[in-house]
Amino acid sequence: MIPRYSRPEMVSVWSQETKFRIWFEIEAHACDALAEIGVIPVESAKKIWEAGNAATFDVDRIDEIERETKHDVIAFLTHLAEFVGPDSRFIHQGMTSSDVLDTCFNIQLKRASDILLADMDALLAALKRRAFEHRDTVTIGRSHGIHAEPTTFGVKLALAYAEFERCRTRLVAAREEISTAAISGAVGTFANIDPRVEEHVAKALGLKPEPVSTQVIPRDRHAMYFATLGVIASSIERLATEIRHLQRTEVLEVEEYFSPGQKGSSAMPHKRNPVLTENLTGLARMVRSYAMPAMENVALWHERDISHSSVERMIGPDATITLDFALARLTNVIDKLLVYPERMDRNLNQFRGLVHSQRVLLALTQAGLSREDSYRLVQRNAMKVWEHGADFMTELLADKEVMAALSESDIREKFDIGYHTKHVGTIFDRVFG
Amino acid sequence: MIPRYSRPEMVSVWSQETKFRIWFEIEAHACDALAEIGVIPVESAKKIWEAGNAATFDVDRIDEIERETKHDVIAFLTHLAEFVGPDSRFIHQGMTSSDVLDTCFNIQLKRASDILLADMDALLAALKRRAFEHRDTVTIGRSHGIHAEPTTFGVKLALAYAEFERCRTRLVAAREEISTAAISGAVGTFANIDPRVEEHVAKALGLKPEPVSTQVIPRDRHAMYFATLGVIASSIERLATEIRHLQRTEVLEVEEYFSPGQKGSSAMPHKRNPVLTENLTGLARMVRSYAMPAMENVALWHERDISHSSVERMIGPDATITLDFALARLTNVIDKLLVYPERMDRNLNQFRGLVHSQRVLLALTQAGLSREDSYRLVQRNAMKVWEHGADFMTELLADKEVMAALSESDIREKFDIGYHTKHVGTIFDRVFG
Amino acid sequence: MIPRYSRPEMVSVWSQETKFRIWFEIEAHACDALAEIGVIPVESAKKIWEAGNAATFDVDRIDEIERETKHDVIAFLTHLAEFVGPDSRFIHQGMTSSDVLDTCFNIQLKRASDILLADMDALLAALKRRAFEHRDTVTIGRSHGIHAEPTTFGVKLALAYAEFERCRTRLVAAREEISTAAISGAVGTFANIDPRVEEHVAKALGLKPEPVSTQVIPRDRHAMYFATLGVIASSIERLATEIRHLQRTEVLEVEEYFSPGQKGSSAMPHKRNPVLTENLTGLARMVRSYAMPAMENVALWHERDISHSSVERMIGPDATITLDFALARLTNVIDKLLVYPERMDRNLNQFRGLVHSQRVLLALTQAGLSREDSYRLVQRNAMKVWEHGADFMTELLADKEVMAALSESDIREKFDIGYHTKHVGTIFDRVFG
Amino acid sequence: MIPRYSRPEMVSVWSQETKFRIWFEIEAHACDALAEIGVIPVESAKKIWEAGNAATFDVDRIDEIERETKHDVIAFLTHLAEFVGPDSRFIHQGMTSSDVLDTCFNIQLKRASDILLADMDALLAALKRRAFEHRDTVTIGRSHGIHAEPTTFGVKLALAYAEFERCRTRLVAAREEISTAAISGAVGTFANIDPRVEEHVAKALGLKPEPVSTQVIPRDRHAMYFATLGVIASSIERLATEIRHLQRTEVLEVEEYFSPGQKGSSAMPHKRNPVLTENLTGLARMVRSYAMPAMENVALWHERDISHSSVERMIGPDATITLDFALARLTNVIDKLLVYPERMDRNLNQFRGLVHSQRVLLALTQAGLSREDSYRLVQRNAMKVWEHGADFMTELLADKEVMAALSESDIREKFDIGYHTKHVGTIFDRVFG
Repeated sequence: MIPRYSRPEMVSVWSQETKFRIWFEIEAHACDALAEIGVIPVESAKKIWEAGNAATFDVDRIDEIERETKHDVIAFLTHLAEFVGPDSRFIHQGMTSSDVLDTCFNIQLKRASDILLADMDALLAALKRRAFEHRDTVTIGRSHGIHAEPTTFGVKLALAYAEFERCRTRLVAAREEISTAAISGAVGTFANIDPRVEEHVAKALGLKPEPVSTQVIPRDRHAMYFATLGVIASSIERLATEIRHLQRTEVLEVEEYFSPGQKGSSAMPHKRNPVLTENLTGLARMVRSYAMPAMENVALWHERDISHSSVERMIGPDATITLDFALARLTNVIDKLLVYPERMDRNLNQFRGLVHSQRVLLALTQAGLSREDSYRLVQRNAMKVWEHGADFMTELLADKEVMAALSESDIREKFDIGYHTKHVGTIFDRVFG
Repeated sequence: MIPRYSRPEMVSVWSQETKFRIWFEIEAHACDALAEIGVIPVESAKKIWEAGNAATFDVDRIDEIERETKHDVIAFLTHLAEFVGPDSRFIHQGMTSSDVLDTCFNIQLKRASDILLADMDALLAALKRRAFEHRDTVTIGRSHGIHAEPTTFGVKLALAYAEFERCRTRLVAAREEISTAAISGAVGTFANIDPRVEEHVAKALGLKPEPVSTQVIPRDRHAMYFATLGVIASSIERLATEIRHLQRTEVLEVEEYFSPGQKGSSAMPHKRNPVLTENLTGLARMVRSYAMPAMENVALWHERDISHSSVERMIGPDATITLDFALARLTNVIDKLLVYPERMDRNLNQFRGLVHSQRVLLALTQAGLSREDSYRLVQRNAMKVWEHGADFMTELLADKEVMAALSESDIREKFDIGYHTKHVGTIFDRVFG
Repeated sequence: MIPRYSRPEMVSVWSQETKFRIWFEIEAHACDALAEIGVIPVESAKKIWEAGNAATFDVDRIDEIERETKHDVIAFLTHLAEFVGPDSRFIHQGMTSSDVLDTCFNIQLKRASDILLADMDALLAALKRRAFEHRDTVTIGRSHGIHAEPTTFGVKLALAYAEFERCRTRLVAAREEISTAAISGAVGTFANIDPRVEEHVAKALGLKPEPVSTQVIPRDRHAMYFATLGVIASSIERLATEIRHLQRTEVLEVEEYFSPGQKGSSAMPHKRNPVLTENLTGLARMVRSYAMPAMENVALWHERDISHSSVERMIGPDATITLDFALARLTNVIDKLLVYPERMDRNLNQFRGLVHSQRVLLALTQAGLSREDSYRLVQRNAMKVWEHGADFMTELLADKEVMAALSESDIREKFDIGYHTKHVGTIFDRVFG
Repeated sequence: MIPRYSRPEMVSVWSQETKFRIWFEIEAHACDALAEIGVIPVESAKKIWEAGNAATFDVDRIDEIERETKHDVIAFLTHLAEFVGPDSRFIHQGMTSSDVLDTCFNIQLKRASDILLADMDALLAALKRRAFEHRDTVTIGRSHGIHAEPTTFGVKLALAYAEFERCRTRLVAAREEISTAAISGAVGTFANIDPRVEEHVAKALGLKPEPVSTQVIPRDRHAMYFATLGVIASSIERLATEIRHLQRTEVLEVEEYFSPGQKGSSAMPHKRNPVLTENLTGLARMVRSYAMPAMENVALWHERDISHSSVERMIGPDATITLDFALARLTNVIDKLLVYPERMDRNLNQFRGLVHSQRVLLALTQAGLSREDSYRLVQRNAMKVWEHGADFMTELLADKEVMAALSESDIREKFDIGYHTKHVGTIFDRVFG
């Protein structure tokens, strides 16, 4: 995570201030439950809430205590006691540090997920708007980077919309995965803390109780979470790559918006480069890479070790902040994308008529030729267009074997572009319907 | 994928024979639909089914044709035509190779998922059986590899059960992700093939139509699929690691079953090694690693390139065959695991009474001491046990500051093991209830 | 590893037959050394060689024994004893299985490396030949996919040559890393086997003794080896990506060789797709992915566990066979690559004169304008070319501010293409000199 | 990178201040060379040095300019011009931004490498010191976590020493990989800048000229660099894992130093946990993960795109800062490690005499029994020790078949611990000699 690729709202989810505030709330909710079941005085729980709500936690002071105790939660509790006074002895009763740390981490991930879901909604809205705008903007479809058959630019965006809608569904599932709380004590047995405390805290914080924990919340949940972010990042990379391709000088069917004052190159003043989508490609590599350590984190030893902690202190912020930034940047790119339909048209017709080759192939087979013969006939005419710049229809009309099977009007009819776009409505209905 | 780590049922999902049979069925179902909407003769569709059902596809012959055409689907269609005769010209009308390849790949993945789900059910059954068997087998819980507080071996297995139940849910979702068919033609526009064909083929094969495809089914689906397998593999690694730890010479609370005739070491005849779970650890590394190329596969160029194909030809079989083998091996390990409760008991009491330190801590705070003072009192007595082999209760009873706060019977009561297991029932209800 | 992407020579390195033959040689060389230092009879060592050399090891029989013993080396030794007779008791004296397994694995990796080095030499030769062939074939350089300034196609290939020469150097270092033998007994202490045996075996097999081993050869060596293959694969991906880009329909400056009879698409007969380089892109993803489990293999427990074994049984063959195939395929692509200089020339001039913009910028600054003013002047004329298809020189000559700083002949001189290629010789000298 | 896991010297390598200072030096050295070959006035080059050396670059001001220009190098040059005045127009002549950025990045990586090499030297010194201290401290060697045969704790450390010496060699090679400078202009052709400038700048900054660059220095170099860091991290993980294992409660042969005031657990005051080495395990996962995006960075498009930039802005600091911290932490752990020889002795003898089983096996074969019979005899006695706590020597002496082959004194002699350590000197000579 670096400021360059960070947005403030997501950064604040991961601030020390946010973390200590959540820690306090977990402890205070636990006190409520402990009071309710009669373990600690109701009055004390109330005082703890009041003192904590009024307090401003001093991050530096907590750090200082931690340097001595080498234990972050103890440092925080010691600091909290400075505000609460004698009642502080009722805090953290029967709990273990991980009860606080893990429940907090899940709350942070859940908040991060909410921001990411909002990002996705904005992206989906932009994709939808531009998809309908270019629903009928005909452009060449390409397989292997080679011209194939016509499609529309709107269909390309509808595809991206469907993909990110799937990503949204995945993120909702991933958020569900990490929406649990554990207040289960030293090794998860509830020996020193009643399971009702966990239930209360979970409910108060919008989480579900972890059915069975050790000292920690099981890390398969987090592995699934970060793996999901990696998949979402890969979808960002796909759309970014599409735009980079379309902005290539020789293609130039779209361009990222180029703001006044922006300079593309220190050396070459004419340059307008797809730097935003290139940037997204790199960011996607990063978010994807975080899935690996998250998966390696699953196999903690026995009831827990702490090897996952350093990983999560990094990838928690890094993955969510980077993905948030990337989604917002991608939304902006889509929103402002310059689209050049006339250029799409010019490219489509670069090899004169060739994009209709399959229709001719099918017509020949339907006229009774074998598939193999039809293929041979079409290929030999197609190659003249490809290699010598001939016009496909002209060549076909001059090919005796072709004309033996098809009439001139048959052939001419095969060159209608509307043939290729007739089901665009069906596709849009499926995606947006 | 190597024979050593393969099971026949899963291997057969990925055989050439299976693949060509699925290809045929996709083509034949498409012919049915084409016949129904009047594009090809109903009689021809019927003949195609009859000829294909009667045919035994010759893998070597297809390979031979492919060496010339350098195109696998064309090679297959040419071979199929040898069985079908003149009606073969109605096959593959308006379709593109990827319609066949991608729909087939998804069918294979779905079948593989069904086997994996059955594997998981067997594993869950074994875990449940052993969990209830050892519901009350007390054992020391360990954090950081250091004795913490008591738990039961059944709770450990219940945790694994809950984890694999989550993995099962994830696999069901992953199977859903890849359960789509696409018969959408060259660039996914249905220009040459009616969307109704796709709907028919999908339904006939137990799939859903892909709402919008390019020439290929979008690869974010497969990225999610293989990422999910990676998470499941990580959970296998966790449980395998737990068993490896428990079989260490100094711990020896469980052992993998050691069959008569088995040799642990060519050099040291006394060795009985946890080789199965070590093997599972390695297999988990492999399955996990396949998530990365699957994620890199998402960003295909424009309407498709074919870079994903070589990856999937490898990880399709490799990931599913390896995971199938690993799940079956793990089930076997759990089923036959030798569990030594008396050894668990001995280890638990290695540091005499120390596992009860937290209870004493809590009792002191409840007796009115500050958390900090309580901690100091407990720690100074605990260290004597830890470092000099003292007995914790004896030390506490001899500590004047402690005795000023607690009575002897108070202290003795804190050493009741039942205190730690009183909520095991709650946990089991949550997991299995 | 699948037959489709395998070449026989590399496959044979990893066959069961090869492995057992190497195992035998390790054991027999060890017997020689044991005989020489008087531990076993010289006559027996001789007989062991004779019997083993004459024997054909029966893979199925060894598998059968392993199914009982669950130990592969013991199974092999039992089978070997069937050939050797009573002297077989002198085999494997004081050795541990890993002495055989690890030394064998390193021999296989070393042989694999030799094949890969030969592959690289062939690739380097092809790159060099084509580089000199196109030393002066001017083509547009592109940054961000956008036209930048001219370079030559030979320089592109010289760059690839330099990159693969670095890869070759890395592979030599990686081969060195794994060129060690360990015959150090149960935990690497030489308790039961004299270090001189290790020295003899290592020397006889062209390896160096591992300075200090545990029961196994340390796996950091193998991590480095497979990481290096991953880097080489990434360089393959780079060159493959370059070719894929250059073959795009709109660019079409090169094409993969298209053999007679080859079919690009079952649906579109005109298609000629860069399928080989796309395939290389996918293969690179696979080879790269194997670096992760190899790195995870390093942290074996204590003096060894066996979790690395399943990983290496897979990635040993998979990584080397796939990389061998990829290098050979890339060499073939380069060797036969169709290069279209006239198309390069056409693309270069697509935006008339714009590639000379930097020269004009520099001329303006040298004529005394500030960098900022110069940039502004060039950019405003460049944008007319970019956006309206104007001719850059014409625009400059019509720009009063520009003409105030430069004369017409000054400007005309800036449009000389030779200016850009004047140091190609220097570059070639650096790379090939 | 987070402050918690950062050390100031390495952090400063990556500060904005350091970066701008290096940028200035690259530009100023280039001016020297340009002056020497007569492209710009000698006087101007001198003034540029003076102004830049005297200047304090204002990071906020540069950021502000970048917000407008969206180009970091242009922003810096604009700021630099504010110090230099009119001569600033001679700066960056014929150069491209990447000349500055890439050369700077390599300088930073080289400086980072120097710190890492110093870290390694400190680690090696600590390992050597402790290795010699415990050269003869006998401890049980373990394979599969199961007792195998004796070794010494010094041998364990010697192994780590040898491993990190290899890592050091790898790091030196990796530093060499990235010790290049490129000042080659827009697409690497030196069209606008003489190759002598590159040679001068490279030499002045302790780098080698990149033989052939595009607009960027080829990223295979950086892939190799970060892959090497990943391997080093994996070796850290191995040693950390060893220590974690040895500190387990049941083993407890070593302990991380536990400082006065440190608290192991908020709940359990007796806990002393191997938190430093657990932390190192997590950090290793992170450093390792950065190898993947670095490898994906290799395949930039044509003469460059900028997708690598965001990756490197993150992993440049993240990988080196984390590895620096980890190496220093590991050195500290080794330096202060508490070693308990008496505990090692106790563990070694846990299964009475069993560690000598192989010697007995060998003695039996040398006494003329077949390997299979010897194995059977040893195994049946070993199992009594293993399963019923018998004494191995007693059992052997009571086994008639054994005694038929060996005398009592023969057997007694096999239980000499010195037998296992007799080659420790050889090993130390190999490693440290």
